[in-house]
Amino acid sequence: MKPALGLVEACDQIQESQLSTKDYLSQCSLRADELEPTLKAFTVRGELPELIAQSRPGPLSGIPVAVKDIIATQGFVTTNGSPIYQTHTPKEDAIIVQKICELGGVIFGKTVTTEFAWRQPGPTTNPWNSAHTPGGSSSGSAAAVASGIVPLAIGSQTVGSLIRPASYCGIVGFKASFGAIPRMGVFPVSSSLDHIGFFTRSVQDVVHAFNLLKNNTTTEEESIIIPDVSVQPIKLFLGNRMPRIAVLKTPYDDLLDQEQVNTLKLAADQLKSAGAMVEDLTLAQTYWDGVDATLLIMNCEAAVVHEPHHEKFPDLLSIHMKELVAKGNSYSANEYIQARNLQKELRHSINEIFERYDAILAAPATGEAPKGLDFTGNPVFCALWSFIGTPAIALPVTKSANGLPLGIQLIGNYKDDGKLLNIASFAESCFTNLKINK
Amino acid sequence: MKPALGLVEACDQIQESQLSTKDYLSQCSLRADELEPTLKAFTVRGELPELIAQSRPGPLSGIPVAVKDIIATQGFVTTNGSPIYQTHTPKEDAIIVQKICELGGVIFGKTVTTEFAWRQPGPTTNPWNSAHTPGGSSSGSAAAVASGIVPLAIGSQTVGSLIRPASYCGIVGFKASFGAIPRMGVFPVSSSLDHIGFFTRSVQDVVHAFNLLKNNTTTEEESIIIPDVSVQPIKLFLGNRMPRIAVLKTPYDDLLDQEQVNTLKLAADQLKSAGAMVEDLTLAQTYWDGVDATLLIMNCEAAVVHEPHHEKFPDLLSIHMKELVAKGNSYSANEYIQARNLQKELRHSINEIFERYDAILAAPATGEAPKGLDFTGNPVFCALWSFIGTPAIALPVTKSANGLPLGIQLIGNYKDDGKLLNIASFAESCFTNLKINK
Repeated sequence: MKPALGLVEACDQIQESQLSTKDYLSQCSLRADELEPTLKAFTVRGELPELIAQSRPGPLSGIPVAVKDIIATQGFVTTNGSPIYQTHTPKEDAIIVQKICELGGVIFGKTVTTEFAWRQPGPTTNPWNSAHTPGGSSSGSAAAVASGIVPLAIGSQTVGSLIRPASYCGIVGFKASFGAIPRMGVFPVSSSLDHIGFFTRSVQDVVHAFNLLKNNTTTEEESIIIPDVSVQPIKLFLGNRMPRIAVLKTPYDDLLDQEQVNTLKLAADQLKSAGAMVEDLTLAQTYWDGVDATLLIMNCEAAVVHEPHHEKFPDLLSIHMKELVAKGNSYSANEYIQARNLQKELRHSINEIFERYDAILAAPATGEAPKGLDFTGNPVFCALWSFIGTPAIALPVTKSANGLPLGIQLIGNYKDDGKLLNIASFAESCFTNLKINK
Repeated sequence: MKPALGLVEACDQIQESQLSTKDYLSQCSLRADELEPTLKAFTVRGELPELIAQSRPGPLSGIPVAVKDIIATQGFVTTNGSPIYQTHTPKEDAIIVQKICELGGVIFGKTVTTEFAWRQPGPTTNPWNSAHTPGGSSSGSAAAVASGIVPLAIGSQTVGSLIRPASYCGIVGFKASFGAIPRMGVFPVSSSLDHIGFFTRSVQDVVHAFNLLKNNTTTEEESIIIPDVSVQPIKLFLGNRMPRIAVLKTPYDDLLDQEQVNTLKLAADQLKSAGAMVEDLTLAQTYWDGVDATLLIMNCEAAVVHEPHHEKFPDLLSIHMKELVAKGNSYSANEYIQARNLQKELRHSINEIFERYDAILAAPATGEAPKGLDFTGNPVFCALWSFIGTPAIALPVTKSANGLPLGIQLIGNYKDDGKLLNIASFAESCFTNLKINK
């Protein structure tokens, strides 16, 4: 079986009756049957006849979507990656799941997440080499798209759970602006940091998913509405000038593998060759204080969520979760509020950077996917953008000596997802001749 | 000097050139000159020629507005009610001040606030009896409107700082939905609780001020846009039915003076006589947990704000502020987050109450303004609505045996300020024959 068609291609062919929903769903299902014994991306999948029966008319008609298993689904057990929820089937779908179904899409199955989207990994392997992690916490969602089982998967990111696995798996991962995608019905890690996002195999696919699935009302607190995104030739979009890209230097750069450093440079060179202005950028220390603040907020908020689990089911929680609760409960209100205040300040002050640059180019991870399944990788290069709530997109660039994907992330200004996706589309075209093929 | 014309009347007469801005500002200024020696509502006032010179064309042309002294003004020292800021003149006006000036209004002066809008009172006296407090923390704003010096004053409420002084001073006080009025440039007490609001002498005046001064963009975090409010005959507004009013029973009712109990009953009877359905309402204990949570959040957030003051200027802070900082720093992040979570939950669950009732009728304070200036009164009857962020309006109803005002508050649903103001207009008409005259 070949990889399933990408999202836009499949939507187009289905809408124009060149492809039947039955055929497409069958292909995806067969590919899953073939790969799942090694890949282990899914906790549960729908039976093909049911999937076919569920598809309804609409812009996502016949499109199978994989959904991270912290996202509530009526039709499937939703384990949140924890033995505590092994038999938990929610009474209501999460809003994002409702939207998918209303648009005609089909919930193909639930994808493996780390325990409560935190550290304890699941069984999913990297589609490029099963001895390596796919990253986490959105492990199964990234693997399911990268292996061509589904054209679209829903994931979430609190620190680095979308961008990092997308990069490890060689696909596009998009974390929209904080609050741009409905979050109700998603089991929280940390409500001040949790973002919902998408895995696809191209920027156009992510744009399509974003336009269909983003908020169109703000019923939840802390939700925002982003206008529909239309991708144009970059000069047209930017008013006849070329993009200004800032290559980010971070205090964590000594954690980068040489191959990741080279990948960043390769990407920057390709952008420069295509006419972009590319400059190095350093940020004031107060931004990097944001990385510590991210972890502090996450610890504190997650501790409140998981304290009841800790009390009732101590034997069913990993040591990681226990440490999280203990750590979160060690902070004072004062420390937490100062961290939240810093978050607001940086969301405001980052505007100044995006007056000078259209996007920031940065490492999505330390390098290729780490070997082994015990550690899903270091999220530190994603933390600041989860903290500030700016949109970020991971793009594949090249391959490592081990044949594993290497990529970059681009970051745009908060609420300016449209510009970021236009820059990403331009960047993707710059990287085309480097495109990694499985 | 007579009391100055009310807001709408003055606006109308000025717009139609029946009243000159000079004459109106002169009347207000003269009245202030006459009353201020006893009233002490203002920390600083503009000189009449300057006020006249400042007025520009616009819907608020020639309208003098009194501004609570925690709100930044370029033209006046902004003390925040603290000796620490005795000579502090901000570089920028608060957004609400900018709006007033852009609409042609005139900043008449800055009004006395308790120290940092917390407990330590200023010198302002109650316009009805100078031996009594005007309430706080918006002491001067309430007194300036009640005494007929200005038709409109800006105040703020974190727990009970608008509704309580409005009631003590026998005027209308309106706290809009949390986030509905621009807050940037207002010195914070507690960013999760601080509301901006208005004092006027009638509901139509408060509607006019609200329509002119509410947010029309959401540049700040946690800000919302409420549609323009239009007051209609109540049956027309409600679709040919009469209002359903819930009279709130609280666990604090034994703190109510008999006169306040009678005032609530009188108001309920008047509403019933006018055709409203009036029922008693009790709320689940979880709502009243919100009162403790209000104080916890306020303590924690205020401690972060005032810790630097405490470190640098310990001798210039009252014992109240020192206690606030110490108390705020005693809470854990876990306790704070649980309080914030409860706030979100109640803002959601209160919808169920407002499906059954158009407004809640409640005591705005324990009774008449307490004697003496040392204690600005108990805010407990306002706390829950500051916590949830629902709009609330204080209306005068009658007078106490001591000749001091007694009133009620009406509470509407979050973001449904329009309905609350329509109900308030109906209620105001029901109370007309009881109207207190100075």
